[in-house]
Amino acid sequence: MNLSDRYSVLFEPIVLGRKVSKNRFWATPHAIGFGSDSPGSAAGYRGMRAEGGWGVVFTEATTISPEMDKTPHRMSRLWDEGDVRNLAYVVSEIQRHGALAGIELEYNAAVGPMTEGRGLSPRNPVTTPGESSLAVPYVGGLAGLDADGLAEIKDAYVTAALRSQRAGFDLITLHCGHAASILAHFLIPYYNTRTDEYGGSLENRSRFAREVLVAVREAVGPETAVGLRLGVDTLDAPLGLGDRGIRADGDAPLFIEFMDDLVDYWDLVIGGFEWALDAQSSRTVAENFEKPWVGHLKKYTTKPVVNVGRLNSPDTMVDILTSGQCDIIGGARAGISDPFLPEKIRTGAIGNIRECIGCNFCVSRDMAHVPIACTQNATTGEEFRRGWNPEVYSRAKNHETDVLVIGAGPAGMECAMVLGKRGMRNVHLIEAADHIGGSIEWSARIPGRHEWRRLIEYREHQLGQLANVEVILNTAMSASDALDYGAGIVVVATGSHYSRDGIDPFNRLPFGLEPVFGERLFTPEQILRDRAEVGRRVVVVDSDGYFMGPGIAELLAQRGHEVTFATKGEHVGEYQRYTRELPHTLKDLRTLGVAMRTETAVTPASDNTVRLSHLDRADEIIEVDSVVLVGTRISDSGIYDDLSARRDEWESNEIAGVYQIGDSVRPHFIAEAIFSGHRLAREIDSDDPARQRPFIRERRIVGGTDADFLLTSEALRRTI
Amino acid sequence: MNLSDRYSVLFEPIVLGRKVSKNRFWATPHAIGFGSDSPGSAAGYRGMRAEGGWGVVFTEATTISPEMDKTPHRMSRLWDEGDVRNLAYVVSEIQRHGALAGIELEYNAAVGPMTEGRGLSPRNPVTTPGESSLAVPYVGGLAGLDADGLAEIKDAYVTAALRSQRAGFDLITLHCGHAASILAHFLIPYYNTRTDEYGGSLENRSRFAREVLVAVREAVGPETAVGLRLGVDTLDAPLGLGDRGIRADGDAPLFIEFMDDLVDYWDLVIGGFEWALDAQSSRTVAENFEKPWVGHLKKYTTKPVVNVGRLNSPDTMVDILTSGQCDIIGGARAGISDPFLPEKIRTGAIGNIRECIGCNFCVSRDMAHVPIACTQNATTGEEFRRGWNPEVYSRAKNHETDVLVIGAGPAGMECAMVLGKRGMRNVHLIEAADHIGGSIEWSARIPGRHEWRRLIEYREHQLGQLANVEVILNTAMSASDALDYGAGIVVVATGSHYSRDGIDPFNRLPFGLEPVFGERLFTPEQILRDRAEVGRRVVVVDSDGYFMGPGIAELLAQRGHEVTFATKGEHVGEYQRYTRELPHTLKDLRTLGVAMRTETAVTPASDNTVRLSHLDRADEIIEVDSVVLVGTRISDSGIYDDLSARRDEWESNEIAGVYQIGDSVRPHFIAEAIFSGHRLAREIDSDDPARQRPFIRERRIVGGTDADFLLTSEALRRTI
Repeated sequence: MNLSDRYSVLFEPIVLGRKVSKNRFWATPHAIGFGSDSPGSAAGYRGMRAEGGWGVVFTEATTISPEMDKTPHRMSRLWDEGDVRNLAYVVSEIQRHGALAGIELEYNAAVGPMTEGRGLSPRNPVTTPGESSLAVPYVGGLAGLDADGLAEIKDAYVTAALRSQRAGFDLITLHCGHAASILAHFLIPYYNTRTDEYGGSLENRSRFAREVLVAVREAVGPETAVGLRLGVDTLDAPLGLGDRGIRADGDAPLFIEFMDDLVDYWDLVIGGFEWALDAQSSRTVAENFEKPWVGHLKKYTTKPVVNVGRLNSPDTMVDILTSGQCDIIGGARAGISDPFLPEKIRTGAIGNIRECIGCNFCVSRDMAHVPIACTQNATTGEEFRRGWNPEVYSRAKNHETDVLVIGAGPAGMECAMVLGKRGMRNVHLIEAADHIGGSIEWSARIPGRHEWRRLIEYREHQLGQLANVEVILNTAMSASDALDYGAGIVVVATGSHYSRDGIDPFNRLPFGLEPVFGERLFTPEQILRDRAEVGRRVVVVDSDGYFMGPGIAELLAQRGHEVTFATKGEHVGEYQRYTRELPHTLKDLRTLGVAMRTETAVTPASDNTVRLSHLDRADEIIEVDSVVLVGTRISDSGIYDDLSARRDEWESNEIAGVYQIGDSVRPHFIAEAIFSGHRLAREIDSDDPARQRPFIRERRIVGGTDADFLLTSEALRRTI
Repeated sequence: MNLSDRYSVLFEPIVLGRKVSKNRFWATPHAIGFGSDSPGSAAGYRGMRAEGGWGVVFTEATTISPEMDKTPHRMSRLWDEGDVRNLAYVVSEIQRHGALAGIELEYNAAVGPMTEGRGLSPRNPVTTPGESSLAVPYVGGLAGLDADGLAEIKDAYVTAALRSQRAGFDLITLHCGHAASILAHFLIPYYNTRTDEYGGSLENRSRFAREVLVAVREAVGPETAVGLRLGVDTLDAPLGLGDRGIRADGDAPLFIEFMDDLVDYWDLVIGGFEWALDAQSSRTVAENFEKPWVGHLKKYTTKPVVNVGRLNSPDTMVDILTSGQCDIIGGARAGISDPFLPEKIRTGAIGNIRECIGCNFCVSRDMAHVPIACTQNATTGEEFRRGWNPEVYSRAKNHETDVLVIGAGPAGMECAMVLGKRGMRNVHLIEAADHIGGSIEWSARIPGRHEWRRLIEYREHQLGQLANVEVILNTAMSASDALDYGAGIVVVATGSHYSRDGIDPFNRLPFGLEPVFGERLFTPEQILRDRAEVGRRVVVVDSDGYFMGPGIAELLAQRGHEVTFATKGEHVGEYQRYTRELPHTLKDLRTLGVAMRTETAVTPASDNTVRLSHLDRADEIIEVDSVVLVGTRISDSGIYDDLSARRDEWESNEIAGVYQIGDSVRPHFIAEAIFSGHRLAREIDSDDPARQRPFIRERRIVGGTDADFLLTSEALRRTI
């Protein structure tokens, strides 16, 4: 079997009702923060996945009625004719590249109280824990929905299906998973406590879904394929619904058999009220992690089945199809990271796949109500706004210039790679250490973070293919070295480091631990990079608020240390709320016996004890042998500062520009460091590469027309 | 002195540079959630305040550069020509009504990391506690800003000022307060630790503000008035900055004298990193509460001075001006609640002022990143979107119908009032109790909530003036009574009640406290309305998540009870995070000795003890004499349900429609109950009054023009 035979199963067409997908790649519905209100950005994003070879491209979960308003979440809406026009444009950009366009319709009875449209909708909401920051002062239930209410909601589904059809969608999925839809709420006993013909038996709990599906099919006729996205298992407590949910070996197969006559395909997922159980990070799950729940269900249906679950590797995809697990490979994050995944498999360019690291930065953007972004792929979300295609790089106007990039961390690697692809004459990427990757190299030693090494591996492979890029290791640079180097452009990407005492962001004073604990205080670099030995009893003091503090606590606890984690913040690893990793992190740290203290100040009580202070609790004094401070990161911008100070020497050294990227500007997320390197390289030939070119902001502009939403539009002009 | 003389001082013109305000009413900059991206909605809102007589109307704080991106907050932006066009429209709608239009420019170095435009901006951010949910993994400081950086930021101010001028603004305020602007960050030692000519002495800390102001004035010339909004006191720790801030009796007067030559007016406020210290709710502050800080500062300037601080009453306003405290009355919430406040004073209609209750629902919407709304004024934010004017009501097409409104709580009062104003022939508002107001009557007994009674008083006064509305007390109604009543339209507004056992939203099971504690368990109604006697040791169990639970804890602690407050939620009174009341509530409860337990389950341990369980702490067992359960609210929808079941009797009773509003549909915020009553009355003559008419959603529409943003536009069509 040769390579192309090996993967050919992925490229067999498949019939979906009266539609045919050209292959087995299915971009599942996932939110991107553009909703239907930023149609150009949405079309740019979805169209790029179609161009990259996905046979089916879905837009995101779409609210079908103003009564179901998920504000402030930026969800796609299909409420009125304006939405139809916007989504029709998105559809056209998907179909233009030969993909089928799909939409997922949802009436969610579990949304919060903060609507844009005001009022008391949705009626009879079913609250879910985990969103308590927008607490609903009411716990409703489906029991309160009468026949009129059910008819209205069914009508809303039908109207939305007809609108979807008019917008040109080929496939309509009704969402019945993630406990994010009233269809799922009816199905799940946790929510459905009705005692009439809509409650009790599985048939009763499925009744409304059947009624809706019958009505939708009748309305749209046979030309549009209709399917269900089913949450087949709501998992164990505490993150799941336990015995009050539905289970893959219980209701799920029965439901599939019961509904099979009404659907053209099945999209199978897992997860209860925490939808992100279906999109867990690489810290907790590996490839095809949903197999234990979804893997045996195909036998209950005669229709094509989609599976998901961190499906990244072409070989695994083939195994999944040939083993009969399912018919279609569903993916969201795989395509966020590499829209051209299918094309790269088809053309044998597997080594060039930009593989998802499973960090869930994409998820975090969604949770924070901002447009999507990706750590691996700096062009994600920028397809329309900046006109970026991850596989297409124009030759730079100043391509006959040589560039020196100092520092091969995330920003430097990315910048050198893109500069190489833009055809700069010579790009030298110089690194003081004996490897590229910068802080990723040692951050990836945190439990569950080893896949982050793909950030390095992908770039290493790309750099190796670029004849005009040379990577030079073990070479420390100074400003003088850079001035003498002979490059016409210098890019400084020298990163940052954790301080030993730093500034506590909660009071902008030093932490005051280092003066007492001295060498018994450790920074993250010492623990991870230098593998320093720490004592048995450790307190990890965190003001960083993301993965580093909890990760080090986990590592040390795994090694048998007695660990206390303390932060003045409201939560452990605050930002993990946005990546949806926090519930898992808490569970794991508790299992390891890590004591956790939030809203807690840590001060030295003696030379081997610290005081833990919480305003509503008695102080605790604990004995510690070592302190780990995951505090403030400090930019290493010395070379840039020196070069700036010696600006009058640039011309004589034929240096046209010196730029700074990544953490050396401002310590930030890895994604932002990579973005900054990518952005600079994309705009290295602009009038002022130090500053971003304007991007297209889609909003209403008074007196505006489509001409105002072009990169050349006067509306974007920033000069006076 | 007759009435008009009494208030005439408020209507004296005042000179601001070369501009003249027609009176002393100044609508201060405040966020409304429409930013510059929803120009129609912004213009509708601001224009209504101009129409209502405010002499000066400001838009909100405006970010001057993409480098200062406050996403996901919906802030006004002045980044490019598209923004100029949108703001020019807002300005025209302000000036059309004879008001001066003002803009507040801000470069905030303390914003979070979640930008729309990506990248590492702002450089050298200064983190602030209190926003830890979007933790910044970096604590920068002004120290890192070099001359280039300063020049760039100054340029951004100049560019923004020129853009403001081109948009037509009369007044440009540079924000130097709330620790929300780099000008304030330079001024405040807490942030500014520089040791060069920009740090140290007051003159040094003011240097950048002077440089910016000089550059801006030079750029815009003399025709545009330029002023400063100065935070004169950053208050005491822990909510304020203490000795490291600036104080009204320290730096503030010196700064005013030092800068006075450069400004045309001063807008004086208070507050440090917690901006809402300047917008505290009526729970913590009374009218003119900022006087102790701002009251003595006028003597340090020769320019007009604006003061703010819950200035609601015309008499207080007069006193403030005549006493020499300041020259101009600034207000945000007063105008949110009543845009026509100035006109009502001018025309002697003082009794009709819809006075702000200080609940901070408006603030909560801003914090949650959704468009503005107001508890008192249902039309706030709806001026453009629905075409509502709070003082203008069209005669209903079906005005010859009689309407029966059952229940005189928030929804019923509002609905009857608006139906009266719309000229319905007879409106009967029937109430079972001996007073109107529903739950507000007893909720207002919570400490600090007495001003909420204005919700009743305003409506009582309005209803009294409407000859076609009759209020009938002490009259219980049944569905049969309603059918027989003789009204052509019946509106059910029967509210809700707290359950005794209810459904815990965190697991959808009963709390399990009532079976053990029986009559020793109390609901909020029993405590507040019925003034039940409770035992000495009380645990308040809260799943309601707003004001009720903490309010009852406070009340009981004030009365000398030993109180423990416990919730499974992450915070005490979760929603008070959004109203920005939470820090004050916590402080007050701590002062009263209330023990507080969050993320804590309460279960009976014996018949006089409960167990408090937190996953990361040892269980606590405490003795209790009484339990207060602030749990689930249950709709009282019996009459509506009965009427629905007897739909076939409507026609014979000449009933055209039966509608339901307020908590009887879904227990919700008071604001939403009032809105639902208002909305129904505004649309009582629509094709289907039970459902909201479409409102205008401002977003980009593909192929769209301004014609798509009219209430009659095809883009709004919701039928198929």
